[in-house]
Amino acid sequence: MCILAAGLIGASVGMACKARGAAKKVFVWSRRSSTRAEAVRQNWCDAVYATPQEAVESCDLVVLCPPVENIIPLYRAILPSLKPGAIVTDAGSTKSRICHEADATGDTRGIFVGSHPMAGSEKTGMKHAQGDLFRNHPCFITPTEKSDHGAVEKITQFWQALGAVTTVTSPEEHDKIVAHISHLPHLLATSICTFLSKKDSHWASLSSSGLKDTTRIAAGDSAIWKSIIETNLVEIRRALSHYQTELQRFEGVLMEGDMEEMVQFLDKGKAFRDGLSH
Amino acid sequence: MCILAAGLIGASVGMACKARGAAKKVFVWSRRSSTRAEAVRQNWCDAVYATPQEAVESCDLVVLCPPVENIIPLYRAILPSLKPGAIVTDAGSTKSRICHEADATGDTRGIFVGSHPMAGSEKTGMKHAQGDLFRNHPCFITPTEKSDHGAVEKITQFWQALGAVTTVTSPEEHDKIVAHISHLPHLLATSICTFLSKKDSHWASLSSSGLKDTTRIAAGDSAIWKSIIETNLVEIRRALSHYQTELQRFEGVLMEGDMEEMVQFLDKGKAFRDGLSH
Repeated sequence: MCILAAGLIGASVGMACKARGAAKKVFVWSRRSSTRAEAVRQNWCDAVYATPQEAVESCDLVVLCPPVENIIPLYRAILPSLKPGAIVTDAGSTKSRICHEADATGDTRGIFVGSHPMAGSEKTGMKHAQGDLFRNHPCFITPTEKSDHGAVEKITQFWQALGAVTTVTSPEEHDKIVAHISHLPHLLATSICTFLSKKDSHWASLSSSGLKDTTRIAAGDSAIWKSIIETNLVEIRRALSHYQTELQRFEGVLMEGDMEEMVQFLDKGKAFRDGLSH
Repeated sequence: MCILAAGLIGASVGMACKARGAAKKVFVWSRRSSTRAEAVRQNWCDAVYATPQEAVESCDLVVLCPPVENIIPLYRAILPSLKPGAIVTDAGSTKSRICHEADATGDTRGIFVGSHPMAGSEKTGMKHAQGDLFRNHPCFITPTEKSDHGAVEKITQFWQALGAVTTVTSPEEHDKIVAHISHLPHLLATSICTFLSKKDSHWASLSSSGLKDTTRIAAGDSAIWKSIIETNLVEIRRALSHYQTELQRFEGVLMEGDMEEMVQFLDKGKAFRDGLSH
């Protein structure tokens, strides 16, 4: 198999593959020569190539792990070099645009099946990679009507082999769900930070772990998040708009000082949060 | 010294006192007999009393650690039993109402000085207590104009002895600050949870650590948070209202799809969050 772009996610895929015997050989290409040099030193990496075309040539499975906006250009670039029977997936955080652009490349074999492992970190780069990053984490598999059934099955088995808990859904359903459970929380964390950044600068130093945890994801790379937001604008707008209705309902409870209603609100929130711990 | 109510905070104060030699003897009273029985078995606890009056009798320092709404009733109850020269503090999460009600008890010695260590957990109870809970954490000391200067100095030294980084501020300024850096984030975490609890129930199982961290504090005890919100309603309302303006500004950027402005927003949020790590 071959990993194109070996940052946090790509390198973690490589480590997990090797540790779990999910691939005989793990090949790597990365855009930056410094990352390729780093990859050469990794014991999970069997070969590093100077171009993505050379890297994929002999592989049965290709995993595209660059930032969202580079996935389709990279897919187009390697298509002519793929071995017959090879299948391709990605690890991008949005799926509708990517999967439909992959379908629109003219390749009709249905060999591209989108993926989105719900794992990561506000940190980036190979040095933060972990072999167990995907273990017990959800992973979306998002075929379109054009996807080859055998390819869907193989991509699903691949992520399961890395320890992920897979869910097969349409790219559109995926984008709607992550707009709510990932992108909205991210944007709220960011907005708490920008809001507080306008206040007295010493206030931040008086905060505790509550504020830190609530805003951790706001430390994510802005270029990565720009691409995510840009490719899921419609669903994120809708989720934010509905969330604001909830926030206004809650503000009404505060304005009335209705503490019984407030306790119900707190209990409902707690019940949901308690259910998140798996 | 004496700890009245030995839950997460009270028991952590006791552990830290003993571990750091901040008090010769640590006495305890707690409302529930089961908590008193648990306290008897702790090696940081020198004596457990059946009533708060007996517990405080011989102590130079009394720390009131019950839920916010019980602090002043407990203070009134022990006032006649305090040893001459004894000073009293609390660990409540809101300060204006508590400090001014303490001033209004009729005791004119200024022996009550409010505190608020910015440390804790969404968990409660003695079994989650930690001796290093306050180490390197901020702690507000909130004297009023009636507070005795010597008492303020001693209370400040006490929290510093437990490892906390103290800040002396008025109760009103404290309540304004924590409305922003603690109560607002809590309510946003709760509102994300109540919002998502209305969606398909399997969505929650597809989330990752981002949503978990963002909402961790929403797992806090609703009775504790009811008291916090109830005693800081005005400042919380104001903070939420101003935050909503920021969120609407941000929604405008999303609606326009202005990705350059979005990147500035993300960068500004990241800069604030990166600055939080101490």
